Amino acid sequence: MKAKKSGDFHEWYPEVILSSKLADYAPVHGCMVIRERGYAIWERMQADLDARIKAMGVKNAYFPLFIPESLLKKEAEHFKGFVPEVAWVEKKEGDGEERVALRPTSETIIYHMYSKWIRSHRDLPLKLNNWCNIVRWEIKQTRLFLRTREFLWQEGHTAHATPEEAEKQVADALDAYADFSEKVLAIPVLKGKKTRLETFAGAVYTTSIESLMPDGRALQMGTSHYFGDHFPKMFGIKYMSEADGTEKFAHTTSWGVSTRLIGAVVMVHGDDKGLILPPAIAPEQAVIVPVFREDSKEKVIGKCEEIRKRLEKAGVRCIADYDENHTPGWKFAEYELYGIPLRIEIGPKDIEKKQAMIARRDTGEKAGVAEAQLEEKVGELLKEIQTNLFQRAKKFLDENTITVKTYSELKTAIAGRKMAKAAHCGNEACEQKIKDETEGGSIRCIPLKQEKISDKCAACGLPAKYTVLIAKAY
Amino acid sequence: MKAKKSGDFHEWYPEVILSSKLADYAPVHGCMVIRERGYAIWERMQADLDARIKAMGVKNAYFPLFIPESLLKKEAEHFKGFVPEVAWVEKKEGDGEERVALRPTSETIIYHMYSKWIRSHRDLPLKLNNWCNIVRWEIKQTRLFLRTREFLWQEGHTAHATPEEAEKQVADALDAYADFSEKVLAIPVLKGKKTRLETFAGAVYTTSIESLMPDGRALQMGTSHYFGDHFPKMFGIKYMSEADGTEKFAHTTSWGVSTRLIGAVVMVHGDDKGLILPPAIAPEQAVIVPVFREDSKEKVIGKCEEIRKRLEKAGVRCIADYDENHTPGWKFAEYELYGIPLRIEIGPKDIEKKQAMIARRDTGEKAGVAEAQLEEKVGELLKEIQTNLFQRAKKFLDENTITVKTYSELKTAIAGRKMAKAAHCGNEACEQKIKDETEGGSIRCIPLKQEKISDKCAACGLPAKYTVLIAKAY
Repeated sequence: MKAKKSGDFHEWYPEVILSSKLADYAPVHGCMVIRERGYAIWERMQADLDARIKAMGVKNAYFPLFIPESLLKKEAEHFKGFVPEVAWVEKKEGDGEERVALRPTSETIIYHMYSKWIRSHRDLPLKLNNWCNIVRWEIKQTRLFLRTREFLWQEGHTAHATPEEAEKQVADALDAYADFSEKVLAIPVLKGKKTRLETFAGAVYTTSIESLMPDGRALQMGTSHYFGDHFPKMFGIKYMSEADGTEKFAHTTSWGVSTRLIGAVVMVHGDDKGLILPPAIAPEQAVIVPVFREDSKEKVIGKCEEIRKRLEKAGVRCIADYDENHTPGWKFAEYELYGIPLRIEIGPKDIEKKQAMIARRDTGEKAGVAEAQLEEKVGELLKEIQTNLFQRAKKFLDENTITVKTYSELKTAIAGRKMAKAAHCGNEACEQKIKDETEGGSIRCIPLKQEKISDKCAACGLPAKYTVLIAKAY
Repeated sequence: MKAKKSGDFHEWYPEVILSSKLADYAPVHGCMVIRERGYAIWERMQADLDARIKAMGVKNAYFPLFIPESLLKKEAEHFKGFVPEVAWVEKKEGDGEERVALRPTSETIIYHMYSKWIRSHRDLPLKLNNWCNIVRWEIKQTRLFLRTREFLWQEGHTAHATPEEAEKQVADALDAYADFSEKVLAIPVLKGKKTRLETFAGAVYTTSIESLMPDGRALQMGTSHYFGDHFPKMFGIKYMSEADGTEKFAHTTSWGVSTRLIGAVVMVHGDDKGLILPPAIAPEQAVIVPVFREDSKEKVIGKCEEIRKRLEKAGVRCIADYDENHTPGWKFAEYELYGIPLRIEIGPKDIEKKQAMIARRDTGEKAGVAEAQLEEKVGELLKEIQTNLFQRAKKFLDENTITVKTYSELKTAIAGRKMAKAAHCGNEACEQKIKDETEGGSIRCIPLKQEKISDKCAACGLPAKYTVLIAKAY
């Protein structure tokens, strides 16, 4: 690692990803390869999220990559929201077929199918989730994991008989994302509603979870949208009601998180030495590094293997590195770069003392642990690291979220790379003014948990409608 | 179900898929939606295959959907093999970027990355697997699961220091696929090598597993290719050898299976009533159908729930259907259509007798089982069904594989929808002649396990080189 996180964050970020081998640049502009170290993290995220999604009664399905132009255009606002970023398939000469897009999101094709499948109240709720690749032909600068022309995500799409049931689904999905983010990724988030200006194209409202990155920019970590019966009216998703036998429109939702979350983990937890992975998603939770000379080699490796097996049996994801082409010091640096939560060092003296040295990746603390206590202590340490990473990130978020009452305070906060908490009038013109005048600060959300700051809008002084969070955003 | 499997197989096949809700047609020609019932089968297949892939020391990664034209064209034969089916992204005006294809397979982009990542013998073997969607803009008639413009698959790509190691990987992958097919899908397969004419574009040789479908056509179930150092030379995948310090080219392989396997399961095991799913991949292995009148309802449902929980605890994937809008008879037909291996019926009389009636989907046999023996008996029956489905399919394969010695016998066999086992001279002209003169019969493979049939080629009478399998193919 050459770049420093605190010094040149925007050089540090790609460097840590490339050198820890999470990902690499692909030969197509704006595209990346997720390498095995990065994909193993995604597999752990997927497994956890998939269980949460299924626990909401949602089933997985697969909808096509291709969306006919006429379907994508059916909802004008939705189409307009995506049009510059849509990639199209080249027409084959003379095939007489309709032009097709690569999915920038799948509402339109899924609703087309839902209108075929939903007939009666007995077909509702219909709750499906799609794990797939998404294409948005970005014109803005792309960034590994955060903004690429292709990315992986899950998109849940549900249809319900009543608005109440649909709105509960919107909230349940957001809660699941928030819990996942905090408990699994160790990243604290704020749940909120988007302003009209930031609402997903075609939605009645959009909710999101937002977090604050070390460079003072907010990152949208996941979204959950309520569509009401807007799309069902466009696409004819109707059902025969049980109560009065009349035809009614369904109410729909969609929600998703993507491989962008890997970028969030890198940014929030990493340091100058490289990645720091929360134990819950670390493909390897502990690495054993033997320290030996030729005469103690056999004994030390034997002990390391014994301990590796014991830890594996105790459910710890543990590897050992017996490669003699590298020094222990080289290995220490390498596994710190990879962000493995615990390093276990074992040498002849440790064997004599019936102990092992354990070093924490998050704090750098190192201490001897009696062999007999290893499983217990490793388990405790992994829990502590998971908690500590969350608390560290929470402290950063709290310290960098500043309550502002005046426009000048607001501008200072954004210029100082803070997240500003401010009263707002709710007018779009005022919202746009903030965007234009604060070096790109924008209303990230209207927190679901409202606290009263002032009667007056911090930006324009008109009566305040609610409290908002304002920051620059990724 | 209207169509009969034995009568009009090609109407029966899409009908059983659509009515059992495995899949539906998408609004883009040649594309399909994999519905939740179909995707749940794919998830079970994926989990099993993924464990086998990882057991070979292969890790998952994700390579982009987009391949630059120059990369795809780098190996002329490979490109020529795919060119009519390649879909391209429409160029954005004035972006000055290269034309990009949607991956029809990922050798080229993966080898481009491998050439960056592989430097030393220490970087080998490099063994990665990609679970992804593939695009082949089919011009031929498409068929649900068997031939669609987009499908899901896994593609393993490995690079090795020596040919021996690479060839072992080719064989290991093929063995894993064969074992998976026979043990999990209950479909018997034949392992073989492809003739030059049928070899994957750019490969030194291609091996495959082939099975025989009920309409007498062979289905290629999976392939495993050896590339030697052919692609490494094109793409510059070189490593510094440990032995003599010189630069050498790596040797590569690739291998894959796709959602086509779902189509194979449908065809091989299904019957006039619908699907029959092998217990190993059935999302639900047993369905409990209560039989009650109003006065026994509470008691019967209580007992059903008790049994459902017991079976769930015993590791059986079990559901129960208490819907009062449908008769038990309606439900019997519905779950037969879905192919659930076991149906458990419970009524007041069964409760009195402390038993449940269990019906097998594969044979239709139905018998009372004492409540105390339920877990044990259900476990046994699921194993028996898995075995029986395989044996049934094996019997069909054996009975429909015919040894032929003359050209007229060969023609009769293919016209009679059989798989012919014949001696062959190994000449391409003769192979092409068979294709032209036997209503589309082609050499499916040269079985790895050779048995001698004749000294003379069945088609041309010239000296025989090996024994081949000839059939019409999907």
